[in-house]
Amino acid sequence: MARTASLSGFPEWLPQERLVELHVLDTLRKTFELHGFASIETRAVETVGQLLRKGEIDKEVYGLSRLQEDDDASVGEGGKSDKGDPNALALHFDLTVPFARYVVENAGYLAFPFRRYQIQKVWRGERPQEGRAREFTQADIDVVGDGELPFRYDVEIALVIAEALSALPIPDFRLRINNRKLAEGFYRGIGLTDTPGVLRSIDKLEKIGPEKVAELLKSELGASDEQASLALQLAAIRSEDTSFVEQVRALGVKDDLLEEGLIELEQVIEAAVQRAPGKVLADLSIARGLDYYTGTVVETVLVGHEQLGSICSGGRYDALASKGNRKFPGVGLSIGVTRLVSRILSQEFATASRSVPTAVLVALNNDDSWSAAQDVAAQLRGRGIATEVAAKAEKFGKQIKFADRRGIPFVWFTDDDGKHQVKDIRTGEQVDADPASWEPSAEDLHVRITTA
Amino acid sequence: MARTASLSGFPEWLPQERLVELHVLDTLRKTFELHGFASIETRAVETVGQLLRKGEIDKEVYGLSRLQEDDDASVGEGGKSDKGDPNALALHFDLTVPFARYVVENAGYLAFPFRRYQIQKVWRGERPQEGRAREFTQADIDVVGDGELPFRYDVEIALVIAEALSALPIPDFRLRINNRKLAEGFYRGIGLTDTPGVLRSIDKLEKIGPEKVAELLKSELGASDEQASLALQLAAIRSEDTSFVEQVRALGVKDDLLEEGLIELEQVIEAAVQRAPGKVLADLSIARGLDYYTGTVVETVLVGHEQLGSICSGGRYDALASKGNRKFPGVGLSIGVTRLVSRILSQEFATASRSVPTAVLVALNNDDSWSAAQDVAAQLRGRGIATEVAAKAEKFGKQIKFADRRGIPFVWFTDDDGKHQVKDIRTGEQVDADPASWEPSAEDLHVRITTA
Repeated sequence: MARTASLSGFPEWLPQERLVELHVLDTLRKTFELHGFASIETRAVETVGQLLRKGEIDKEVYGLSRLQEDDDASVGEGGKSDKGDPNALALHFDLTVPFARYVVENAGYLAFPFRRYQIQKVWRGERPQEGRAREFTQADIDVVGDGELPFRYDVEIALVIAEALSALPIPDFRLRINNRKLAEGFYRGIGLTDTPGVLRSIDKLEKIGPEKVAELLKSELGASDEQASLALQLAAIRSEDTSFVEQVRALGVKDDLLEEGLIELEQVIEAAVQRAPGKVLADLSIARGLDYYTGTVVETVLVGHEQLGSICSGGRYDALASKGNRKFPGVGLSIGVTRLVSRILSQEFATASRSVPTAVLVALNNDDSWSAAQDVAAQLRGRGIATEVAAKAEKFGKQIKFADRRGIPFVWFTDDDGKHQVKDIRTGEQVDADPASWEPSAEDLHVRITTA
Repeated sequence: MARTASLSGFPEWLPQERLVELHVLDTLRKTFELHGFASIETRAVETVGQLLRKGEIDKEVYGLSRLQEDDDASVGEGGKSDKGDPNALALHFDLTVPFARYVVENAGYLAFPFRRYQIQKVWRGERPQEGRAREFTQADIDVVGDGELPFRYDVEIALVIAEALSALPIPDFRLRINNRKLAEGFYRGIGLTDTPGVLRSIDKLEKIGPEKVAELLKSELGASDEQASLALQLAAIRSEDTSFVEQVRALGVKDDLLEEGLIELEQVIEAAVQRAPGKVLADLSIARGLDYYTGTVVETVLVGHEQLGSICSGGRYDALASKGNRKFPGVGLSIGVTRLVSRILSQEFATASRSVPTAVLVALNNDDSWSAAQDVAAQLRGRGIATEVAAKAEKFGKQIKFADRRGIPFVWFTDDDGKHQVKDIRTGEQVDADPASWEPSAEDLHVRITTA
């Protein structure tokens, strides 16, 4: 099934592949709802001003303009494509910025802390490459508070995501967690105050290695040998338990913010050791590019597929959403559904047992039997059994082949005397059956997703 | 809950409203799958050339361009916004044109006749008005054949849609069905050969009335008084049974195509009288604006809400998709989900029993009991009971208020001795409970959608 998208960066699935994606989406939805997250969707379109509020991402945004503008088209309604106009329309590039806007707009109607999940497509005009599409689906959970948000939600969000990912047909994964306060406090403690600059350099660690990062820190941020060395020593720390705390303290740096970050990260790891053992580690090299994070930051790798990049990222943002003096701090994580599904399909981690929902094809004895066949089908559907009726009274062999090509397990026959039989076309077994009571096995009732 | 969208034409729902929309979407999906339709999604983006292939719709299309173009951006990758370029990218305005493209591209991987459902957002840059948004969700079912497609699918599609709409929390509805062959054959039979022209005039019947349509037919198409009168007599025919056939024949027009159309429409109405009584009528005024329809055409009104416009439209298209000499005729219908949901919400045809999926809030006795509370929650979730844990050990009154504001029916308490109790906060009744076995009533387990 290896096909090439007809438009580079815009993947589309075949029906059998889509069933795997649906399984992933249904599983995520179920897990999120079990944890009390409410569904919302936001419009695909934001104003450019809203999207570029945090800067540094304008290269990725798709602007909109109406192909044939009305003469009376007004600004801010997509009638103009003036890129300097903050009211011009563009497609959202993630679900966090639109969610922040939604929260501010609807604050009067929401109960805080407000927890929501949001599963939608997003668009980025980047050059497509493996694991990086221009249109892709994200599945986000976030909790947002009014004024304040207990840190416990940082812990909870990580646990919910670990549970959600564990339910998917994917290899083992690791949430790699860091804390911006910890990093910023540490850098400040050693005399490096340009936190975004240091984070940008540290973010390149996996790509260019520690020597080159040290060079960057020295050349671009004026760090001394010792400062660069300490920053790199911090970034080298990782632990599956809370031992990272002692390792950081052993570096001898004192700072209040560092201490606050250490305690926060310790809480996350402590809970994870107990409730999601082996799934989470403290990794003090995690930086996250976008700059709205203020505490917890998370990236997630599939073990053995690290080159795929992060399949789930996010963190705490205390200042993304505000309305006058009113602040709405939040914490959330975003699963890259399309990236995951692409990998599941290309590696055949999971496959669908058939290409259609149909469990039973009702065959036609002759062309006049269509209505009677629909009666049989209606009875089966009434008990939740997905059923199709043949459109033509072709030879039975051809009608069976119709089912076989789609993986439909059962074909139903009604003879001229009204006698019903159902055939399992995999075994050839054919038995008498009553449309009012016959049922397939639970295994055959719905499409099954089988994991490799 | 009457709010104004912050961007005109781009509606967004509150969590409690979204639950109603989810109910509609889940119900449609379930019905479609019971009838063997497979899910697919197509990319939101098509090339302008693909979208404008059928003409007459360019005014509605949103083109895309990257806000900050790379110098090396190549044509056809959204790097340019040259509106004359057929490789430029734009958002799809319906799901039929993208589906036709998908079928042609993936013909080698699909089993024909191929039946799919597709539920996605579409975009039209029109001036927003009541019932007409710029971003809205459509739910489509189509069956497409390879070379030929039995007419029976026209009948089946109408019946499936009638069943799907009957399952929604909406007022009574009517599928108004006509047939292009019938209309075209009739016009030809009376000497009017510009079928699109006549259809365009007839399409204005409800807006401008029969006198003005007669004038149009005469002034723009050169029709005689008698031709205009006959065309209007045809358009005035409607019947809930197959009596329309006699009414048409009584007009005395002879034409082979007319005869073919009469027989097709008769089959649809005959089946509908039996299988969806009262839901379908032959309405010979139905024209449909877009011109890719070649046989059956359908519009649907909500009884008592006719001014809302059609909530479900479509028909047979024999020439929309082709690959060289290979043709893929199809028939399908598209439900305007956003239009329906807007009306359901504004008229309160249905409401959600609570604003969150959560059935149980586990209260905290003290701040150290969070982990034990998570254990209780995990046990409940393990039996499918959506559960949240309080984030802070506030006074019980405050924790109960947290649940009450969201409509969460139950609050769970565990005292310092590990004794569990659960309180129904609507009745105040509080009883001993075991987290390993307690269950809410089936009514309270999930959010209920109650209809007015």
